[in-house]
Amino acid sequence: MADESLFDFLHMEIVAHVYKEQQSSKGEMDNKDRAVCISVLEGMGFRVGQGLIERLTRDSPSFKDELDIMKFICKDFWTKVFRRQVDNLRTNHQGTYVLQDNKFVLLTQMSSGKQYLDQAPKYLAFSCGVVRGALSNLGLESVVTAEVSAMPSCKFQVVIQKL
Amino acid sequence: MADESLFDFLHMEIVAHVYKEQQSSKGEMDNKDRAVCISVLEGMGFRVGQGLIERLTRDSPSFKDELDIMKFICKDFWTKVFRRQVDNLRTNHQGTYVLQDNKFVLLTQMSSGKQYLDQAPKYLAFSCGVVRGALSNLGLESVVTAEVSAMPSCKFQVVIQKL
Repeated sequence: MADESLFDFLHMEIVAHVYKEQQSSKGEMDNKDRAVCISVLEGMGFRVGQGLIERLTRDSPSFKDELDIMKFICKDFWTKVFRRQVDNLRTNHQGTYVLQDNKFVLLTQMSSGKQYLDQAPKYLAFSCGVVRGALSNLGLESVVTAEVSAMPSCKFQVVIQKL
Repeated sequence: MADESLFDFLHMEIVAHVYKEQQSSKGEMDNKDRAVCISVLEGMGFRVGQGLIERLTRDSPSFKDELDIMKFICKDFWTKVFRRQVDNLRTNHQGTYVLQDNKFVLLTQMSSGKQYLDQAPKYLAFSCGVVRGALSNLGLESVVTAEVSAMPSCKFQVVIQKL
């Protein structure tokens, strides 16, 4: 469906653009430049996540606790944004959550071989931001990172920051 | 629906990002800087349009003529990308088409007053590119411009470039 791929294509364009602009201003990219790109993409995702969750929870009852919020993120939110539910949610009950998506939408277009594994982080930064933005709007400050060991499966780790 | 607003939010982020980066490298923006931004956004749209139309026409029969293509753009393509059909299509039968959308999706979030009219072009550049990219993939090179006289209504003018 084209309306679905609209997001995928647009996301690809953004990633390409952010990397290109950084590269053109610096020539060769080092780790610091790559960190700048990741941070720019993550920031965009953060604001998008804030906007989305606001609409999505407008008519929702309030959540009873942190786990309740995480379940909402894994089901309703994930379905709306990433077009499927999270396959597995684990937690240590101390504020750390691991969300596993076995077919993460933004990785399914990439080859499942190992040769692009090192490219994965740039395609996940935006999504990490989306999750962090959504949680932030629900009152949970967090650090969100993503890890790919075999495409297109992806694990997002959410660490809630206690005040 | 959040899956719909995902595109809208992402689009807003891209526009903001492209303008911000241009501004931060130049300080005050002049008309030339604004033209650069428009061109960057249009280029992104072009590639997204190419990708989308490729998926959308994969199982479609081929088109019989230029008008047939334009009708497809106004109905199927517009619905998939901009979530409604074009309200009115006019042509001079010499390669110029005017597509009028009375509630253009990327303008409906903006105030309908006149005070933001001058901001409209930056929110239309990407979409002009999308249309040009789609047409290009169907074998029609074109120049696509957009004009707003009253929000959120928008007229896209497509001028097919004869070889």
